[in-house]
Amino acid sequence: MKQLPETDLYPKQGWHLETIVNELKELRQAWRQEYNHLDLNNGHYFPSQEVLHHTVKTLAHVLFPLRLGPAHLNTETEDYYVGLKLDTALNSLFAQVKLELAYNYQFQSYSPDENFHLEIQAKQLVYDFAKTLPTIRKNLDLDVLAAFNGDPAARTVDEVLICYPGIKAILYHRIAHELYLKDLTLIARMIAELAHSETGIDIHPGATIDSGFFIDHGTGVVIGETSVIGKNVRLYQAVTLGAKSFPKNIDGSLQKGLPRHPVLEDDVVIYAGATVLGHVTIGQGSTIGSNVWLTHAVPPHSYITQSSH
Amino acid sequence: MKQLPETDLYPKQGWHLETIVNELKELRQAWRQEYNHLDLNNGHYFPSQEVLHHTVKTLAHVLFPLRLGPAHLNTETEDYYVGLKLDTALNSLFAQVKLELAYNYQFQSYSPDENFHLEIQAKQLVYDFAKTLPTIRKNLDLDVLAAFNGDPAARTVDEVLICYPGIKAILYHRIAHELYLKDLTLIARMIAELAHSETGIDIHPGATIDSGFFIDHGTGVVIGETSVIGKNVRLYQAVTLGAKSFPKNIDGSLQKGLPRHPVLEDDVVIYAGATVLGHVTIGQGSTIGSNVWLTHAVPPHSYITQSSH
Amino acid sequence: MKQLPETDLYPKQGWHLETIVNELKELRQAWRQEYNHLDLNNGHYFPSQEVLHHTVKTLAHVLFPLRLGPAHLNTETEDYYVGLKLDTALNSLFAQVKLELAYNYQFQSYSPDENFHLEIQAKQLVYDFAKTLPTIRKNLDLDVLAAFNGDPAARTVDEVLICYPGIKAILYHRIAHELYLKDLTLIARMIAELAHSETGIDIHPGATIDSGFFIDHGTGVVIGETSVIGKNVRLYQAVTLGAKSFPKNIDGSLQKGLPRHPVLEDDVVIYAGATVLGHVTIGQGSTIGSNVWLTHAVPPHSYITQSSH
Amino acid sequence: MKQLPETDLYPKQGWHLETIVNELKELRQAWRQEYNHLDLNNGHYFPSQEVLHHTVKTLAHVLFPLRLGPAHLNTETEDYYVGLKLDTALNSLFAQVKLELAYNYQFQSYSPDENFHLEIQAKQLVYDFAKTLPTIRKNLDLDVLAAFNGDPAARTVDEVLICYPGIKAILYHRIAHELYLKDLTLIARMIAELAHSETGIDIHPGATIDSGFFIDHGTGVVIGETSVIGKNVRLYQAVTLGAKSFPKNIDGSLQKGLPRHPVLEDDVVIYAGATVLGHVTIGQGSTIGSNVWLTHAVPPHSYITQSSH
Amino acid sequence: MKQLPETDLYPKQGWHLETIVNELKELRQAWRQEYNHLDLNNGHYFPSQEVLHHTVKTLAHVLFPLRLGPAHLNTETEDYYVGLKLDTALNSLFAQVKLELAYNYQFQSYSPDENFHLEIQAKQLVYDFAKTLPTIRKNLDLDVLAAFNGDPAARTVDEVLICYPGIKAILYHRIAHELYLKDLTLIARMIAELAHSETGIDIHPGATIDSGFFIDHGTGVVIGETSVIGKNVRLYQAVTLGAKSFPKNIDGSLQKGLPRHPVLEDDVVIYAGATVLGHVTIGQGSTIGSNVWLTHAVPPHSYITQSSH
Amino acid sequence: MKQLPETDLYPKQGWHLETIVNELKELRQAWRQEYNHLDLNNGHYFPSQEVLHHTVKTLAHVLFPLRLGPAHLNTETEDYYVGLKLDTALNSLFAQVKLELAYNYQFQSYSPDENFHLEIQAKQLVYDFAKTLPTIRKNLDLDVLAAFNGDPAARTVDEVLICYPGIKAILYHRIAHELYLKDLTLIARMIAELAHSETGIDIHPGATIDSGFFIDHGTGVVIGETSVIGKNVRLYQAVTLGAKSFPKNIDGSLQKGLPRHPVLEDDVVIYAGATVLGHVTIGQGSTIGSNVWLTHAVPPHSYITQSSH
Repeated sequence: MKQLPETDLYPKQGWHLETIVNELKELRQAWRQEYNHLDLNNGHYFPSQEVLHHTVKTLAHVLFPLRLGPAHLNTETEDYYVGLKLDTALNSLFAQVKLELAYNYQFQSYSPDENFHLEIQAKQLVYDFAKTLPTIRKNLDLDVLAAFNGDPAARTVDEVLICYPGIKAILYHRIAHELYLKDLTLIARMIAELAHSETGIDIHPGATIDSGFFIDHGTGVVIGETSVIGKNVRLYQAVTLGAKSFPKNIDGSLQKGLPRHPVLEDDVVIYAGATVLGHVTIGQGSTIGSNVWLTHAVPPHSYITQSSH
Repeated sequence: MKQLPETDLYPKQGWHLETIVNELKELRQAWRQEYNHLDLNNGHYFPSQEVLHHTVKTLAHVLFPLRLGPAHLNTETEDYYVGLKLDTALNSLFAQVKLELAYNYQFQSYSPDENFHLEIQAKQLVYDFAKTLPTIRKNLDLDVLAAFNGDPAARTVDEVLICYPGIKAILYHRIAHELYLKDLTLIARMIAELAHSETGIDIHPGATIDSGFFIDHGTGVVIGETSVIGKNVRLYQAVTLGAKSFPKNIDGSLQKGLPRHPVLEDDVVIYAGATVLGHVTIGQGSTIGSNVWLTHAVPPHSYITQSSH
Repeated sequence: MKQLPETDLYPKQGWHLETIVNELKELRQAWRQEYNHLDLNNGHYFPSQEVLHHTVKTLAHVLFPLRLGPAHLNTETEDYYVGLKLDTALNSLFAQVKLELAYNYQFQSYSPDENFHLEIQAKQLVYDFAKTLPTIRKNLDLDVLAAFNGDPAARTVDEVLICYPGIKAILYHRIAHELYLKDLTLIARMIAELAHSETGIDIHPGATIDSGFFIDHGTGVVIGETSVIGKNVRLYQAVTLGAKSFPKNIDGSLQKGLPRHPVLEDDVVIYAGATVLGHVTIGQGSTIGSNVWLTHAVPPHSYITQSSH
Repeated sequence: MKQLPETDLYPKQGWHLETIVNELKELRQAWRQEYNHLDLNNGHYFPSQEVLHHTVKTLAHVLFPLRLGPAHLNTETEDYYVGLKLDTALNSLFAQVKLELAYNYQFQSYSPDENFHLEIQAKQLVYDFAKTLPTIRKNLDLDVLAAFNGDPAARTVDEVLICYPGIKAILYHRIAHELYLKDLTLIARMIAELAHSETGIDIHPGATIDSGFFIDHGTGVVIGETSVIGKNVRLYQAVTLGAKSFPKNIDGSLQKGLPRHPVLEDDVVIYAGATVLGHVTIGQGSTIGSNVWLTHAVPPHSYITQSSH
Repeated sequence: MKQLPETDLYPKQGWHLETIVNELKELRQAWRQEYNHLDLNNGHYFPSQEVLHHTVKTLAHVLFPLRLGPAHLNTETEDYYVGLKLDTALNSLFAQVKLELAYNYQFQSYSPDENFHLEIQAKQLVYDFAKTLPTIRKNLDLDVLAAFNGDPAARTVDEVLICYPGIKAILYHRIAHELYLKDLTLIARMIAELAHSETGIDIHPGATIDSGFFIDHGTGVVIGETSVIGKNVRLYQAVTLGAKSFPKNIDGSLQKGLPRHPVLEDDVVIYAGATVLGHVTIGQGSTIGSNVWLTHAVPPHSYITQSSH
Repeated sequence: MKQLPETDLYPKQGWHLETIVNELKELRQAWRQEYNHLDLNNGHYFPSQEVLHHTVKTLAHVLFPLRLGPAHLNTETEDYYVGLKLDTALNSLFAQVKLELAYNYQFQSYSPDENFHLEIQAKQLVYDFAKTLPTIRKNLDLDVLAAFNGDPAARTVDEVLICYPGIKAILYHRIAHELYLKDLTLIARMIAELAHSETGIDIHPGATIDSGFFIDHGTGVVIGETSVIGKNVRLYQAVTLGAKSFPKNIDGSLQKGLPRHPVLEDDVVIYAGATVLGHVTIGQGSTIGSNVWLTHAVPPHSYITQSSH
């Protein structure tokens, strides 16, 4: 047994917490003073990933109540469930949207008028989002069919819906993307990262993805913010749709918001490990082979393999 | 602050849920009418991934009570725990198996006789599964030893068992594979995807894997349904054992069930990022280097690197 | 419907548990007899990954109370929270440290003196760890800034802190590494694997990583035990910092503990999918392109791409 | 400090559980052999008070969703909630009813036919019970009004519904009594005891109680099995409606099932601590004063005080 | 086995919920139309007893952190705990107070101005309440001492604080009474009934009780709304401090708010089962014996027994 | 709407917690200084009623696993359950016993030797307690039979065990009394008060109660510390076995520990509301009528009613 150090810890029970608490406090204060402009509302309320996780799971249950919802549901009770849980999810999202708006507006305290405007704006945004849920469901149905048709190991559409990480990723993405379109970029990103953590598939909420989208296996896939993906596109694991380089402004800071990721037209297939970089178009019906490294556009119906380019 | 939109939402409190609930209902009904043949029992009960997650974790605790079970167990109480939790896990699995059988048989309501047959068939399947648990444990012990012997960073076998994602993946797989062999393919796949989500390792439950199997790091590994893996095989992260192409039937639909993935004989090692595709045999004792792309068989004791093939 | 097997299960209700319980018991006993030297304290108490998961999440909340802590905190209450939760986390860690020490010392029962020494040693280790928390926070602040500056998609530092898996991975790593330095290698590894499971980023707790470290996307990154990483290094997904080969001792066993992973000097950038193997130094300011395979040192300010080496 | 006893407990960690487990097992077996005729199904499944507690609380929420249900409900969502929770409660009650029926029939294993009959009988009983819920609600509305009109401290009907233990007791009773009428006497009694534990009011589920019933304060009230209570009756704390004596059969055993408790006609008021014993009728509109001891019938509109009888 | 009823329930799975849901809906609507004046805000939000239960338990923990709070607290951490939980409790109370105010004002929707006024009024009420907590603690300390001095079975003051239901009842009462004084009569009553349910002691929150108050055993004690109790008063189980009769208004309705309960001066002792009715004064230092029935005032230092009056 | 008070609370968000936290702190410090001799270890750890509640419920499940334990148990699994939960309950009790011992010894910090002695003493006490569990079960079986035989409303012994509050009270009492006999008076009292709160039956843990004890209805029963009760005694609701007066020492303090409560010999029956005070003996086979007030001994086979004494 090692020689014990000299110590004043025993037999006192505590941890001398006060010192550590104070040091951490000073570090927080220093950060807030220095990076106030980056940390917009200086330490005030902020959306919660835990709450959003619960919200987005509830929305998934609302979209597919008998498959993703609780085991006891049946056709007699599914509408009651959908109505009740939709209300729960929207109220929860409403609270998070208010936090993001307050953060964006750098509100630290609220006058009655400011608060009223915030409430009504958040209400409208969530309500508009809610109205897109049927469209989201419709697109997800097509995604499920695409996966079923594209994978010889798939036995039923229900297996696809429940088991395939690619379906979970696109389900979360379709929700996140609608919020991104409403400038709720923070919440949208938080939802995207929940999917990333659970599936290893990293789709930026800004990516525009049409219906019938299928990612098989999925781990390691990265899809950048300004990617545009057509109908019935299929990707395999470890595919990257990335940016080539980041143009800078005159002052050396990165230019944000430019289109910098690939455009995949309808019916494109990209096999595992391929990398497509930059704002280039992959023509309709093209196939990109495994591990291909591609930084230029290809015409429709191209077939690119490692050796061919 | 942005100009607020005209709205009728405020000061009413609700979300006008009825419209959205009805639209979602119509979409579900449309799906069920059109894809009834794919969604076998038309919206009725279905196995639950949440329940299976709990079940398979309980089985893991039963297999290694003092290492994976609750902290309070000791050698005096481990058998009480094993007996009690085995019962819990089997009852829970029994309920899920009944759901899969009813789904497969497309039961929507049950006559007493149908119900009796379903119960007794499920009971026999779960009981037969239970009897394989000692063999599963025996193989997992060999997997742990293989990992301990193969990784210089491993200090004890307990560290391997608890920390290595490759061990979790093979533990889930050995359970899922036994269920797959009993034609419980849906439950088997759901368990496999739980491992995939937690470890980034995607092993199809159909894969046949002998003892002493070790995956290091693991993220991005994909092992296809008809893969056959011998004793003491070692894989590293991002290895793919995949299919080359999917033969189609005359009507253009995919042929399902053919052997289409690699066979790895005993003592094969495949380094990170390598891809082996198709129903090809990697001979006993061969080593496949990192990032190798391999679509043909290799004889025993081959040493394949990127430059060498 | 299939023909049912002959069975004696019905209508008895049970699972004939006793046989299975006994078979599993014999397997445990056989293992303990044979691998006692590897399974140090022969089945006695062991640290719990579930407890550590909770502990490390609590420490994350303590480090960033208003961003990672519960939604209700504000600037009036954050110090109360930090003090209370720090105590909780340290007590919980203290219990786990005692378990690791007892495991290492192969204690199976405790004399009062042994127990006293164990308590006081664990207390000192945890207390010393606690004193490093402000430094950990300081480094994490720099990591967040590095990510914000390095990613054009990042809008605010808060978004970086909350959404980026690379930040979660380095947060867990900085905690795990401090424990590794105190020879609590088992606990350290368990924490590292928690990060691996949640982010797909696999950093061995032994790796030495300076401040301003940023991993983008992250899935599939592997950083080996003896890696040394300078200031302001940036990695992308699927980068491997690995070992080339494992030198063996005369008896054929692996030599453990030698430096066998890369050294990255300050300001190095390594793009997605690149692999650097062995104890080689990547000079200050170098850039390694995507998918590069590198097993030798490169001088400062090198720019290595797939075609260039 | 006391002298320590000689002990073999330390430093061994366990509790020598095996002996105690076996002694308890033998006692259970002895009981089952000797009192098998009283413990009808010899140790098999039995209704669960914990489950019933949850069930009856759910039914209370269904009956008064905006007052006793969860805080987030509103007029837009209450029907969704009522539909969903009614299903939950009835399914849960259905499972308990099957247990009581199996217990009554002394089933220890089930043939398919027995099981089918049990299922269908339980289903019908629960369905018939469900149809009485609107009547229960109607009576409870009148109970609430009676309490509001009878207590000068009551400010609103909502306060009565939520705060008054007498209302909780009659709510549970009206549910329990309906089940008692269907010969589900065990479940009925278990529900009655839940009310007793929470309110100190002990109403046997067999008691027949008309609408407009109000118990003020309530602690210590006892109402026997064959009591019959008319409309708009009011009781105060510690009132007993009991049996005078228990007639015995020739063999000395107690005669069960005879009417042996009081009949209270409409508009009777009984003040705190009064005791009425035996199958006697208290005439319509009578008032019984505090602490009165009464064992004979009284005509309508009597006014009985301690001194007056 | 009984003859089974004809049924259309089997093998359909559902409960024909729609009919019951609709009947219950109609009953709620009928009630709301008819008793709208009693059910002030017609089915809108209302304080929640479950939330208040949690709130008042948290306040109890704040008042006595090391005795009623969680087991892990110690003198180093108690202030952190008190600060954090006080915030939690006040926020939770704040939400409930807003609900009671909105209920009282019969708000069904809120204009920004109304909402602002409600918020600020609730805030002030809760803040004023918070400032009385030290006084509440001071009085409770004297209550504990009184119990310790008055009961030969009490061994330590800690035992009194933790075990005696009379202490729990007065703790809840002192909180409820402060809220009652702020016209939050609904919340106050809900808290009082929580104490009643847990202890069998029914103290109306309006009762004025000075320090050093002790109730032994307690079950069945009733203390009316306008009771006034001096210092160092001691009551035993089943004591009633009630109203004699309820004066009515000309229209026959009950007069509310008049003093109608006893006044107990300092140092009064009332033994088990005694009843004191009406607005009468029991003089300082008097003793009322068990089961005494008293409806008139008695001078100081009286000693009243069953036989003596 | 009321006029709003002038306030500085709005729009600041906080509650000015610091002042209240400090005032509460000063009150705790003042109490600890003044009543240090009563509050033995000056604010250090103390047994937890919440933990004991859980412990005693677990013991009840261990004693009657198929009736009070979880619904899924059956005859195949009950012994596994008993073994596992007995361990849980004893470990939990062990921790509480250590706290009571440390409290009694006024330990504020522990030397290794003190700690060792405390551990071993607690271990022995709990182990000795555990050995009494079979006897407790045996007595409870007789209590259940007595209740079954004594109540015409009882249909089966299982109904008695599960529904009767008198059984719960005696179950908790038999556990508490064993602990009381081992001088664990604080824990014993805490368990007694749990029964009191749930049943309204207040039995001091010091009371000596032989087998076959039955309390019907039970609310309001009080049984004092030095009561002695023989075999097959039956009590009804609101019976008091109390002390007549408390003899004082010369200094005016109460004499503690003298026998001051009744002795009931075998086969005594006491009807509802009767009060027996003082150290008097009720002879074997006597019956005491409802509401009788008795302060003197009565010979065997007496029959005492209100009018007869």
